[in-house]
Amino acid sequence: MNIMSGQCVFGQKKHLFFLPLSEKKKKNGPKSLRDLRAERQAQAERSVLVSCHPKTHENKFLKYLSRHGNVNKCFFYESFGTYAVVEFSNQDGVQSLLESAAMPSVSHESVVPLRSRLLSLRNVNTVDTDKQSAPSANHRELCPSTTHSLTDENTRLRFLVCSLLNDIAAAYFPQSSIKPFGSSVNGFGKLGCDLDMILDLDGTICVRPQPRSGMYMEYLVKRTSSERAVTQSVLSVIAGCLDQFGPGCVGVQKILNARCPLVRFAHQPSGFQCDLTASNRVAMRSTELLYLFGELDARVRPLVFTVRCWARAHGVTSPIPGAWITNFSLTIMVLFFLQRRNPPILPTLDRLKELAEPSEKCVLDGNDCTFTSDFHRISLETNTETLDQLLGDFFEFYSTFIFNRMSINLGRYGKEHKPELHPLYIQNPFETSLNISKNVNSSQLERFVTLCQESAWLLQSGSHLNTLLLPSHISVVRGRKKRKSQPASERIKGLLESLRIKNNVSFGFTVFFKNHCNKSL
Amino acid sequence: MNIMSGQCVFGQKKHLFFLPLSEKKKKNGPKSLRDLRAERQAQAERSVLVSCHPKTHENKFLKYLSRHGNVNKCFFYESFGTYAVVEFSNQDGVQSLLESAAMPSVSHESVVPLRSRLLSLRNVNTVDTDKQSAPSANHRELCPSTTHSLTDENTRLRFLVCSLLNDIAAAYFPQSSIKPFGSSVNGFGKLGCDLDMILDLDGTICVRPQPRSGMYMEYLVKRTSSERAVTQSVLSVIAGCLDQFGPGCVGVQKILNARCPLVRFAHQPSGFQCDLTASNRVAMRSTELLYLFGELDARVRPLVFTVRCWARAHGVTSPIPGAWITNFSLTIMVLFFLQRRNPPILPTLDRLKELAEPSEKCVLDGNDCTFTSDFHRISLETNTETLDQLLGDFFEFYSTFIFNRMSINLGRYGKEHKPELHPLYIQNPFETSLNISKNVNSSQLERFVTLCQESAWLLQSGSHLNTLLLPSHISVVRGRKKRKSQPASERIKGLLESLRIKNNVSFGFTVFFKNHCNKSL
Repeated sequence: MNIMSGQCVFGQKKHLFFLPLSEKKKKNGPKSLRDLRAERQAQAERSVLVSCHPKTHENKFLKYLSRHGNVNKCFFYESFGTYAVVEFSNQDGVQSLLESAAMPSVSHESVVPLRSRLLSLRNVNTVDTDKQSAPSANHRELCPSTTHSLTDENTRLRFLVCSLLNDIAAAYFPQSSIKPFGSSVNGFGKLGCDLDMILDLDGTICVRPQPRSGMYMEYLVKRTSSERAVTQSVLSVIAGCLDQFGPGCVGVQKILNARCPLVRFAHQPSGFQCDLTASNRVAMRSTELLYLFGELDARVRPLVFTVRCWARAHGVTSPIPGAWITNFSLTIMVLFFLQRRNPPILPTLDRLKELAEPSEKCVLDGNDCTFTSDFHRISLETNTETLDQLLGDFFEFYSTFIFNRMSINLGRYGKEHKPELHPLYIQNPFETSLNISKNVNSSQLERFVTLCQESAWLLQSGSHLNTLLLPSHISVVRGRKKRKSQPASERIKGLLESLRIKNNVSFGFTVFFKNHCNKSL
Repeated sequence: MNIMSGQCVFGQKKHLFFLPLSEKKKKNGPKSLRDLRAERQAQAERSVLVSCHPKTHENKFLKYLSRHGNVNKCFFYESFGTYAVVEFSNQDGVQSLLESAAMPSVSHESVVPLRSRLLSLRNVNTVDTDKQSAPSANHRELCPSTTHSLTDENTRLRFLVCSLLNDIAAAYFPQSSIKPFGSSVNGFGKLGCDLDMILDLDGTICVRPQPRSGMYMEYLVKRTSSERAVTQSVLSVIAGCLDQFGPGCVGVQKILNARCPLVRFAHQPSGFQCDLTASNRVAMRSTELLYLFGELDARVRPLVFTVRCWARAHGVTSPIPGAWITNFSLTIMVLFFLQRRNPPILPTLDRLKELAEPSEKCVLDGNDCTFTSDFHRISLETNTETLDQLLGDFFEFYSTFIFNRMSINLGRYGKEHKPELHPLYIQNPFETSLNISKNVNSSQLERFVTLCQESAWLLQSGSHLNTLLLPSHISVVRGRKKRKSQPASERIKGLLESLRIKNNVSFGFTVFFKNHCNKSL
């Protein structure tokens, strides 16, 4: 997937790779996930997705678009073909463009005449495509490796896909909304991660006070045995719509009997693998918690991404499901480690719960999911440890962690004994009876511990970071695991560039990067 | 199914049974089916369907409704429960009522929160239901027998059901419309007939002129191999919606591999058995033709209904599919007979084709379906035959018709030889290679001819009409056919009442009714 980016100011092209998610947040403190979502959603609602010829002349395209409205942002990328995301400054631009659009008239085949904000740019004179320019030279990898964190463009595209899908759901449930959750928005997502979405039907249930006497009306509706059955019904119909009508939606699978019923499909125009669920509210809350932890301290995300990159290089994690430690588990392990610094870099979940206002009280499916989302209420002691110190101490911490007796639990400061016998026990933050690392077997855990020991030793003995990020002598390549053709050092190069720009980390870690990596990468 | 009817003027109750479909038509000549449809559709769009307690106090209900808007019409009927059709004088009334409505809050079960114009009236104080009144005393049979022609109320309800279903289809295809066709609107429908509907997607395909040069947009849509595949896709999704979301829609069947793909279901609130198709344009045109014939002369419909009633009494037709002659075939036989009077009471289809303006040219799926729908262009010689004469001559005509060589064909005046060997050959008016009575076997045709001979003889010898309408000695009751408990004379009584009021037939046939039937019924 390649990307080229155009700025809104007509004629002035400016690349916007790796733009921070929200540039303003540094000035006014972090933005809440709710506000961030609302802003992204509004952007998405005034955007369209356009399939284009690969050599579309960008200036002519922008000139054409400007007839319909003021363009805030426009960028191209390549997925299954070339596409452009166009954000107008208001809905009128979208409406004007849609009103000008025609149904394709195709001989010898027919079309499902669904009008959506997914369009196709046609050009009567092919000379209008820019033969001189070679936009492919401007392309960059949107998913150059699986270790890059999400860019502004990728995030915009994720919200746009949610918004396009919501147009389909809103046809029946006007008060519904489809929201991304998980790695797409929690701040720990990598490029190429799945797009997890939730169809939130809560807005559709409007409970009115009944009059004390006299007549009133209720909607006559289908009744089902449970909320789960409603979810299944709604997802079943949406799956049918996507399958039969949804342009670019392929491989639609209804997985309705799962613990959390979902619809899985590939959205070709965006290149995203999508999972749509309708009732996973606890997962929404987990997303908010992770986002909060990521925003509380600038060192959290770089450390998480570096540990994940290290883990990927040594086969601790794997894209193939199995007994490996997952990225989610590793993320929780880093957060847990940061809670245990002295002074702590992150508060415990119990502390966030204590700080919550009564209005933030939240119980979902019997689980207490209360915590404050208000950054102003959370004060932490100053901890000045550098990222290189923290990385070394992370390896040290897990080299000596008593995995056979202790659990990893974001809730409390005190030590927690494992309630069950799985080699690795990481408590699900809200569904506290669940172990999120139940899949990890003893040998995988042993490999992890051995690698931590080795890496701690290497760092202490003054090795470069890139030495850590190359497969070590103890990292056995499994028969079923295919090695990436791209060496780890290449992936790290991109990662470091991404993190440096993204987080404006001007202390420790950047120095660490500069000293240890850049000269040799 | 029972009916009680309330007039719009608040507090003044007036029964409106058997109101003519359009009272104005007598003054300004017949109304075109297109105009009639548009009027009915507009009524339906400003109407709601309300499930009520059987003892709802009508005046209090009307008072409650008047808070939301001016009520044009309100009537109650019984299906699976008691329902009211409420027509406001404009859309604002509907909107206001819907905005006041709540989602039911149900403990221990869940609801699919689809908001539609299908509502449920709730009453906080049960004392508000009218214990004194016994509305059931006001009820009349909406479908007292299968021989009654459609009433105004029943027609309103049919259009309302189409409009409610269109709300579902329009969610994806805003320019679509669901229209009734066949017996619901052709003027020959009987109470209790199925509701045949077509989803017309033509409005959704808006072909715009392409610009001569430069860029333009097309909607990105799913492509299929054929128009049929589009129809199947759309019907498949709508079937899913009806099944999962549609209040009161039960027994939803997808019959997508039929020659004409359709969705079949029972709509409980109306009590209608529904068939929804999406591409049966020839059937739409047949509906228009039958409507035109019915409107051209006031004797057409009474004669058709009487012949059908006679046929039903003698087992010529049957509600069970089989080798019996269908009501549709009988209707065509009556029309064919009326084309052959001297002077003709109805013109041939070929004549209607000659009279068509160029704008009325119509070719559907390779079939020439051209004919004029303009009543002013059709002039006929004066024929003063009475309905009793015509009934006798109908029996006479088919007593001597050379079925083994001749076909029945609404197209031409001349005699037509049968192109194939089926005992009865009635050419489909537009798909001229099809025989609509292919199902009829020799013994059923023989019974029909024998009954015609007997009935012609009875009428000539001065017998009363009701003698004709009682099972004759030659009408053998088939083992598999259940006799209706209601005697034919009872059904006839209702039929005659219906036809007399509906058609204002003040000559021949009414006298015939009075002289021959009413005193003895």
